[in-house]
This record gives sequence, C-alpha cells and structure tokens, in this order.
Amino acid sequence: MAKKTGSMETAESMAKRQREISVSEFFLKNRHLLGFDSPRKAIMTAVKEAVDNSLDACEEAGILPEIAVELKQTADNRFLVTVQDNGPGIVRAQIPKVFAKLLYGSKFHRLRMSRGQQGIGISAAGMYGQLTTGTATVILSKTKNSPKAHRIAVQIDTRANKPAVLSDEESDWRPEFPPETEGQEPTTYAHGTQVGIEMTAQYVRGRLSVDEYLKQCAVANPHLRLHFKTNLLKKEKGAEATLEEGAWLTYARAVKTLPPPVEAIQPHPHGVELGILMQMLKDSTARTLKSALEADFSRVSSRVALEICEKAGLNPKANPTRVAHQEIEALYKAIQETKLMRPPMDCLAPIGEEQILAGLKKEFPADFYAAVTRSPEVYRGNPFLVEVGVAYAKPGENPELGADDPVRLMRCANRAPLLYMGGACAMTEAMEGVNWKAYGLQQPKGGLPVGPAVFFVHIASVWVPFTSESKEAIAHYPEILKELTFAMQEAGRQLAVYLSKRRRLAEADRKRSYIEKYIPHLALGLKDILALSDKQKTKVEDDLTRMLERTHLDA
Amino acid sequence: MAKKTGSMETAESMAKRQREISVSEFFLKNRHLLGFDSPRKAIMTAVKEAVDNSLDACEEAGILPEIAVELKQTADNRFLVTVQDNGPGIVRAQIPKVFAKLLYGSKFHRLRMSRGQQGIGISAAGMYGQLTTGTATVILSKTKNSPKAHRIAVQIDTRANKPAVLSDEESDWRPEFPPETEGQEPTTYAHGTQVGIEMTAQYVRGRLSVDEYLKQCAVANPHLRLHFKTNLLKKEKGAEATLEEGAWLTYARAVKTLPPPVEAIQPHPHGVELGILMQMLKDSTARTLKSALEADFSRVSSRVALEICEKAGLNPKANPTRVAHQEIEALYKAIQETKLMRPPMDCLAPIGEEQILAGLKKEFPADFYAAVTRSPEVYRGNPFLVEVGVAYAKPGENPELGADDPVRLMRCANRAPLLYMGGACAMTEAMEGVNWKAYGLQQPKGGLPVGPAVFFVHIASVWVPFTSESKEAIAHYPEILKELTFAMQEAGRQLAVYLSKRRRLAEADRKRSYIEKYIPHLALGLKDILALSDKQKTKVEDDLTRMLERTHLDA
Repeated sequence: MAKKTGSMETAESMAKRQREISVSEFFLKNRHLLGFDSPRKAIMTAVKEAVDNSLDACEEAGILPEIAVELKQTADNRFLVTVQDNGPGIVRAQIPKVFAKLLYGSKFHRLRMSRGQQGIGISAAGMYGQLTTGTATVILSKTKNSPKAHRIAVQIDTRANKPAVLSDEESDWRPEFPPETEGQEPTTYAHGTQVGIEMTAQYVRGRLSVDEYLKQCAVANPHLRLHFKTNLLKKEKGAEATLEEGAWLTYARAVKTLPPPVEAIQPHPHGVELGILMQMLKDSTARTLKSALEADFSRVSSRVALEICEKAGLNPKANPTRVAHQEIEALYKAIQETKLMRPPMDCLAPIGEEQILAGLKKEFPADFYAAVTRSPEVYRGNPFLVEVGVAYAKPGENPELGADDPVRLMRCANRAPLLYMGGACAMTEAMEGVNWKAYGLQQPKGGLPVGPAVFFVHIASVWVPFTSESKEAIAHYPEILKELTFAMQEAGRQLAVYLSKRRRLAEADRKRSYIEKYIPHLALGLKDILALSDKQKTKVEDDLTRMLERTHLDA
Repeated sequence: MAKKTGSMETAESMAKRQREISVSEFFLKNRHLLGFDSPRKAIMTAVKEAVDNSLDACEEAGILPEIAVELKQTADNRFLVTVQDNGPGIVRAQIPKVFAKLLYGSKFHRLRMSRGQQGIGISAAGMYGQLTTGTATVILSKTKNSPKAHRIAVQIDTRANKPAVLSDEESDWRPEFPPETEGQEPTTYAHGTQVGIEMTAQYVRGRLSVDEYLKQCAVANPHLRLHFKTNLLKKEKGAEATLEEGAWLTYARAVKTLPPPVEAIQPHPHGVELGILMQMLKDSTARTLKSALEADFSRVSSRVALEICEKAGLNPKANPTRVAHQEIEALYKAIQETKLMRPPMDCLAPIGEEQILAGLKKEFPADFYAAVTRSPEVYRGNPFLVEVGVAYAKPGENPELGADDPVRLMRCANRAPLLYMGGACAMTEAMEGVNWKAYGLQQPKGGLPVGPAVFFVHIASVWVPFTSESKEAIAHYPEILKELTFAMQEAGRQLAVYLSKRRRLAEADRKRSYIEKYIPHLALGLKDILALSDKQKTKVEDDLTRMLERTHLDA
C-alpha cells in the first residue's frame, strides 16, 4: 500500500521505504514493455509467444512442426487462447517454472539461434491472463517417454516471481490436429504440448492481428504445418449470445525438411567486454590461463592462446581464477590487438533464397519475385545474417498490394514475424535510407518506397538485439544497418531489371496498339492505290499485323 | 559456458538446461534496453540517472537543489563521471543496494510523481562502468545526522543481482560547489551525495549529448542551480596526453522556490484490474471488505464502499482476505458500474506556464513565447497532465532555430528531459498529428512542422508509461495522445495569432516602403505645380512621411 509521504523527508525516512522489486511486479506494472499494452495487441503477443516456443522446441528435437491455434471467445472482451504442438513435450517438474516464472528458460545462457531468448514471453502471457481475468494458465503436455500426459494449472506469485500450482493431474490426452483432407481421421502424435490462457482481449482481423502474424509465420517457416480457428460469440437481438464454432484454416507445408540444425557457440573474444572477461576467467574450470582461453572462447587455438598471453606479458600456466585486475586489462588489450578468425557461421540457419521465394509465392500472388541471402557478418562478437525477399504485383493483380501505397514491409527475426513498432526498427530505417528511385520505385523524401510490392526482411543471429522485451523491433547497430542496406540494394537491383523491362514492354505495347489502329486505314488506302481485291486487301492487313507482331518495338 | 547442443534434443535433455536468469544478467546482455548501447549515449544516460536521483531526493527532503556534474577523461575512450548534490544524503546501510542492485528502490511501490520510478537507473550505470572498465562505483555520502561522511566502493554481483562492497570507510568530506561569484569561497553544505563511475564513453557535444541534457534540465527545473565541467585529455604530437581542466559552466536558478510538494496516492478503483484487485484484497490489513475498499483505494467513501458491496451482492462485513474468486469478479464489475470521483490531483506538480516561459526565455532567445498547462486527466486510473511551451524566433534571430528546419521538440517527463528515441514517442506522434498549417506553420505530410521554433512538451504523472527501461519515450495511450494534441493545439492557436499579426505587419512594412520611395517624387511634382520654395518642398516631404508613419496600413 502506498504510504502518504510529506514533503520533508529525511535520509532516514527515505531509507525505510527502500525495497526490493520483484521482476514480475516490475513487468506487471510495465506490461506494455512485454507487448501487453492493449487487448488487441495482447492476444497477438500471447499467440506469438506460444508459437515461438513450439517451433523452437520442435526444431531442437528434430520434429517437423505442426501447430494449431484456437481463439475461443468466452465473453465480450474475453478470449481463451489455446496453442497446441507436436513437440517433444515438457517434463512435469519444469512445467510450473517454464509457464509461471519470468526470467526462466534454457535459451538465455547460450549463444544459439532461436526465436525465444529471454525466458519471459510465455510466463508474461500467463501473467497478463491472470491479471485481467484472475484465471490460471493450463498446460497439458506429454513427452515420448512418459506413459501419461500431465495437466497442470499454474499461476504466478507476482510478489515473489514464483509459480503457484493450483492443480496437477495425470491425463489421457494425445494431441489431435485437423486431417489433411476432410473426412479423414485427425492426425495424432505420441507427444506434444498444449497451453491455454484466458485473457481480456480483442480480436480484429488486419495487419496487426493474429491472422497476419500466422500468415507471416507460414512465409518465414515453410516447413511448418499450421492451423487456425476462431470460435466467436454471436449475439442475436434480445437472445443470449451463442458460440459459433469456426472452421480450421490450414497453412500447408511448402517444404518437408527441417531447417539445418544449428550449433550453440562460445563467445568470440573480440565481442567480450572487460567486465565479462573478468567474470569468465573467475568462473573458468580450466587449470591454466591458456587452456581457459582455448576452452571458453571460440576461435582461440592453442597457438593463438599462447600469442595472447605473451602479448599481455602473462604466464600461460597461471591459474585463470587468480589473475589480477591489472593483468586482465593487459589481457583484454592483447586480445583486441590479436588477429582472430571470425566467429563460426554454422550457428546460423538462414531461410534461404529458394524457400523465401516459395513462401512469398504461396502467400502473395505477384508478377515478379526475388530473394537475397547475404553472407554472415558480426556485431559485438555475435554472428548474424540478413535476407531480403521481394514480390512485385502488376497493378491490380493483388488487392493486398496497392500501387499507390507504401510497399508492405514484413519484418522477421530468427524466423519469427515482427508486427508492431515498425517505426522504431532498424529494418524500417534501412528501408527508408535506400535510394529506391535508383531502382525504379517512387519514394517520398525519407519515407518507404511506394508500389504494389511486399518486402520480406529477415535477420538471423545467435543473439538478436531487440529494442524492448516485447521483441518487436531491432536495435540500430551500425553493422546490422549496413548489412540490411546491402541486402535491400541487392534485391533492388534485381527489381530494377524487371521494372525497366516491364516499362519497355508497356511502352512497346502502347506503340503497337497505336499502329494497329491504323493498319485497316492503311490497307484501305493501299486497296485504292493498287486496286486490290477485298481478299488481297485482307491479306495485306493480315501481313501487316503479323509483321508488327514480329517487330520488336524497342525504341 | 555455452554447451554444444546437437539437433536431437529430448524433453529430458532440454529440462536439464532450464535455469533461472538473474535480472542483472538479463540487463547486462540487453544493456541497450537501459540506454547503454553506445559509448556516446552511455555517458548521457549515466549523468541523467544520477541527476534524476539527486533532484528527486532534494525535492522530497525540501532542499533547493544544487548539483555539479563533472566529466573527467581518463583514457582515449574512458571517462570518470562524477555527480554531486546537496541532497539529504543516503544512510550507510542502504548505499550498497541503492547503487549495486537492479530493481531496488523507494519509488516503485507507490503512486507519486518522481523522476525515478523503477529502481534500475543508477545501478545500471554502475553495472555498465563495471562491465566496460572493471572498476567500482564510488559513493561518498553524508546525512545531516551522521557526524562523518561514508565512502563506499561497490560492484554488482551480476549472477546474483547483489551488491559486493569492496571498501567502506568514514571520511571527512563535505560537498563543495563553485561560488556564485569568482574569487568567493566555494559553497558547502552539511549533507549531500557524490557518486563516481568510470566507464567506456565518448563525449561529443550536440543534440544527444550531456550538454543538451543539462540545458533542458535547467529549462524544466528552473529551481535548480546546476554546474558542469569537462576535463579532457589533450595530446600534442609526440608527447604524452595531458589533462586540461575545464571551467565550470553554471546554470543559474530562475526561481528560488521548490515545486509544490506532491502526495503519494492510493490506486483509483477504476484503474485497478481484476488480478490486482484479488491481490489487494488478499493483502489487506482491514477487518471488513467495506473498510478495505475505503482504506486501500482513493475516492471510496464509506457510502460508496457500501454501494459497491451492495451492487456486488456481498456482505460489507466479510473478511476481505477470504472473498472467493467469483465474488471478486462481481465486486470488480460493481466497481466498474459505480460512478466515482476522479483521482485526487494534488499528486501532480506541473511546472506551470510562468516557469515554462521563464525557462524558455532563459535558454532560447526568441520573439514570441507561449505556454499552456492543461488540467489533469486520467489513464488506466493514473492521474497525469500535459504542458506545452513554444518559443518562436524571427528568422536569423537564434542560430539554434533554423527557419527551414523542422521545429525543435524538447520532450520531458516528470521534469526529466528525454533525448533519444523521439521517433517512438507519443509526443512526436501527437506533434505530427496536429494540422500545423491551420496555425500558420509549414508542415510536410505526416511530419513535424517547419520553422524557427522550439516546442517544450512535458507530461507529469504518478506513473509515466515509458516504452522501455531506458525511459526515453512515452507509450501511446490514447488518453495521453488526446491531451498532448489538445495542449499543442492550444499553444498553436496562440502562435497563430502572433504569426498572423507578424505577417500583417510585414505586409504593411512592404507597402510603406513602396510608398516611401514615391514621396520625394510626389513632393517634387507638388513643388512644380504649386511653385513651392525648397524649404516648403522639404516640409511637404516631411509631412507626407509623418502622415504615412501614423497611418495603420492594415489592408
């Protein structure tokens, strides 16, 4: 409870009010930081967090993912969000903490490309449900090796950031998914997880909605089979509201193989700051400084480790946990001055140009497609790479792509679509910074280019730097901005070739139709001058038309 | 250390990697969320966090604040940042946690207008210093009641989010500030705090720098006496770098009174969500439901409490800690349906129109000034109010305000300037959304207006919703956007009157100078016609000129 405080506080009275703030209290009061600022955004964020987790788990376990998302309206502004996967399942003991404790997870303490990285998302969604409806998150999960599934209802004790288990029972359930063709048996798997959260929410179709998120998810994850269903309340005048069960909308797989497996990597020495170096040496289990450098960092061979120690004037056989502050500063300096191989790049799994094209073609009918996957680069020691795809429709070909609107920008990070906060994102900044007029697109000063096109932009990294915990926008690291710009320019050059050819063809068409109009008159004139028969005149007309068709009207 | 993980994980192998993440580990890896993404921004953020704390402490203790900021370069990219105040000091036992533990403080668990609210800022600055230089934060503090000062060096154990005290000794120090006039004794106080943090940093003057922050701080806090000094390394060719001590730059006080004291308030029932209501009842120390409603919320009188219980069908004498889930839902509904007085507004201390004008006049020479302080409004149960000031210079009058540039937008929240992330801020959105052409300013479509003007925008609230922990931009709550727009339009109307008058005067000037040119010719003509003497002609010329000067050439 807030205590009334006068204006004449003293150091002593202030001291009495000093208190620890639990991380869940903090985010409860700042829930917009987690993407739960409005009922409309909340439902999208909840679906996103659950789907991200499902995809990560499936890929880590080598399972081709199948996911079903269901939104069931329970009252005017209230929905039960259910997401179900065919993943490996979660062992019973971990379920409460995974779903009801902020900052808990398996992905934070490693450098590996994955959608989740913070250990906040799904617990935040549960916390929002609890805050707005007082209900619990219900998890049903079955692993391959357990004979039964577990059904656990859990809330978060926000004051302590700890799970409170409300119920915990064995259950018979096996995940069921809609069949490939109607009338068939539903698909089942021997393992999987289903999570259900009831929350204050609003469901409106559109660019910032669950629909759009799932559509983009299908583009970025062509190996995913995805189902979506809404069951909305319908209210006839004067009657009670009734629930109308919707039909499943299914996004089919475009490819049947998983992305190549990625490896976790050790930190690259050039990306490690002095304070972290101190911590790492203190924590090292290696017996000598040299072996600590080799074991705990990437790209440090035995030879390089020796070279670093020598440069720093340190004994390679020193105990790494006992190196003094001054010596670590020397070591840090020596590391910066040593040439090292760039971080290993097999830790990144790009979507790939072919699959980006397949994804775009599946979801955006258009006339021209191009895709670019750049080579990996490094920011602050973290490998990353950028990909760009573009689809350009003929005017009127795709009602989603207006010829006079700014192009659509689809942003993705580690295969997870980013819908909100476009204005704060490095991808938008890069897009606005490219001179699109040079590639044949109109562009208002400092804005997005205009045209019937969609751009798909993807960053893959072992650690994606987001501008907030809600993971909606990429931070503006110069190295990342540079790569984004290069990738967009490369796609732009391909687009420019197509656009200039199209313009040439359109111009030729215009000329041709102009001449075509005159052929009958010309033939009539020739008939008079040469005294041709009607048959001869028709032949001349046909010949002229054929000649015109063969002519390449280029100039 | 990151463990290599293959692609064939199982539920069991994943479970083994699940771990808790400490909040300091989290922010260490995400330090851009706290405003420490670049060396240039880091030094500004560190100064900001320390100054915010000093100002809050002084005001709570009823002390007219005096603050000195010193940047001392210690190496190429390294600075020692020192901020010293005449505040109440901090009791010894609290110092380690206040400066070396994230999410610890006195401001989070109350609803009261203050600059700090999260309990993160200053510890984050220390953590950044430690990360980049391995050094400790050094605090020197003396309270009124302790005979000696304490000097404490502290680091943060990031794995546990706990302070580690490196040294702790008594000291004789009393804060000294530059004197009012040169040659006088320095000012001293019997109490105060000084904090020093060494960090990797870059100091560049300009719009996003410490200079600008302090200047805006002086505008927003006309009761503050503020000193700033930089001691930079200078390197002659071939010689060792030497430290050049700078001179103190002092911002004088524009007023000698503190802002009116503000009170902490209880949550307003209409801003409390179901989950929070449950928690509050569970925690209540009141003996009955009715008295809990009265004591723990604002604007609930005995009569209103009874009305709510009645509407919800609950016994007012029930034990508040034992109300069932269903019953609390009914209570929640009853609260929403009950008309309540708006939250008390004495919890807000606006800067005020007069002081905004004084601040602008002091720092921005211009031709026209206006200021608007709106009445308080409410978002999510939190009182807030918006103020807008504007200074408009004649073209060329103020080199800082270019006639062809977008207007300068100075953003402030609870008297603390916001420098970064303007693009993500509700204040920018509101500014771009107003139709400035109606008020006589040019405005490119969807952009900021153009002209030699600076707009000062301030939001005061018991809880400012920032878009990130670095507190750089205001979240886009519709109620806040609306008030911002109204305040800007009100200032715009005043500006429009000035601009239209100026345009009229300029037009008249133009006409006048046009006619003036013809007066000599006219006089010459009259001389001929009327056969005047030279003396008479000169008199006619003078008379005509005087007549013209008296004439109001309005049309």
